[in-house]
Amino acid sequence: MSGAEIDRLIQLLAKLPGLGPRSARRAVLYMLKRRDQFMLPLGDAIGEVAAAILPCQICGNLDTTDPCPICTDPGRDGGLVCVIEDVADLWAIERTSSYSGKYHVLGGILSALDGVRPEDLNIPALIARAAAGDVREVILAMNATVEGQSTAHYLTDRLAATGVKVSRLAHGVPIGGELDYLDEGTLAAALKARRPF
Amino acid sequence: MSGAEIDRLIQLLAKLPGLGPRSARRAVLYMLKRRDQFMLPLGDAIGEVAAAILPCQICGNLDTTDPCPICTDPGRDGGLVCVIEDVADLWAIERTSSYSGKYHVLGGILSALDGVRPEDLNIPALIARAAAGDVREVILAMNATVEGQSTAHYLTDRLAATGVKVSRLAHGVPIGGELDYLDEGTLAAALKARRPF
Repeated sequence: MSGAEIDRLIQLLAKLPGLGPRSARRAVLYMLKRRDQFMLPLGDAIGEVAAAILPCQICGNLDTTDPCPICTDPGRDGGLVCVIEDVADLWAIERTSSYSGKYHVLGGILSALDGVRPEDLNIPALIARAAAGDVREVILAMNATVEGQSTAHYLTDRLAATGVKVSRLAHGVPIGGELDYLDEGTLAAALKARRPF
Repeated sequence: MSGAEIDRLIQLLAKLPGLGPRSARRAVLYMLKRRDQFMLPLGDAIGEVAAAILPCQICGNLDTTDPCPICTDPGRDGGLVCVIEDVADLWAIERTSSYSGKYHVLGGILSALDGVRPEDLNIPALIARAAAGDVREVILAMNATVEGQSTAHYLTDRLAATGVKVSRLAHGVPIGGELDYLDEGTLAAALKARRPF
C-alpha cells in the first residue's frame, strides 16, 4: 500500500483525538504533497515544542518555560487563582481575554469510578499557594458535571482552613441560548441567580 | 494563551484537512501530555517521511523509493495500468487487495474551470508507457464526476493511437446500497450493465 514509514506515520496520526485512520490518511497525503511548505516545518515545529515543553512548577500549566509566562507576568493579579481541571480549560479561559488573574491546573478531576483520588491531583500545591498569604480569592472553574462539582466541594472544604475567599463560575443561560432548548437545571439556576436589569 | 511555538504548531496543524483551530488545539494538548510516548515519535516520523518521500518517475506515486515499490514489484502485472487522479485513489484501490497490476497517477483532473490543461497532468508519460509495448490494457479509474469522465474521454482519444485496450470501472449499485436511495443515473447504469445471475 505504501512505504512502512508512511504507514507508521498514518497509524501515529490516527491516534490524535478527532482523527481516525481515514482522516489520518488524508492528512498524510496532504503533507506528502506539500513537503517543503508544510511537512518539514510541521515536523520541526513538533520536535521543537516537544523538546521545550515543561510543566510549570507553580501552576501546572504546560508551556515552553518554567515558571510559565502566566505565572511570571507582573501584569497579572497574583491574588486571584482560577482552578481548572486541564490545560485545555486554561486555554479556553485565556481566549475570553477577560481574566487577568493566575491559574492552577489540577491535571484531572476526582473520580471514584476512575480511581482518581485527591493525592493523584495537583491539590497539595494549591492548598500551599492559598495558605502562603498572597492569594485573596480562589475561583473554582471545574466543569459543571457531577464529578466537577464534587471536586469543587472537596476543594472548598480543603480551602476553608486557609481563610481565602472561594468562588465558582456562574450558572445560567448561555449567550445566544434559547430557553426552550435549555435543560431544566440550567434554567432553574438562571432564575435563582437572576440579576437586576 | 500559550507559548509562541505552541501557537505556531496549532496553526500548522489546523491546516490539515479535517482539522480546524479547535481540533488542532485538542490535538496539540493530546501531544503535550504524551511527550515521550507520542509527540517525539510523531515529530521524528514526520521528519523521516518528509526526508525520504519521492515521486516515482514511472507512475507518479509518492513513496520513499523511486521507482516506487509497486513499479518494482515483479509479482505485479506490468501489462495492466490503472490510471487514477491522485495517490489517495491508488491507496483506495490497494486497500481492496484485488488489483495486481500497476498504476499511473495523473496528479489531478482536467478542469476548464480551474484551468487544468492536459500538459499540467502526468499524461505524456502515460501515453509513452502505453506506446512502449509492454502495456496490454489501461484501466481508467477516474472519479465518476463530470470532470473525471471528461478526463477519461480525453485519455481514451489520446490512447487510441497506441492500440492498447482501454477500459473503465463499472458503474452500478454499491454493495449494501438500497435502490430507493440511489440516484437515477446510477440505477440506469446498473440496469443497462446487468449481468447474468
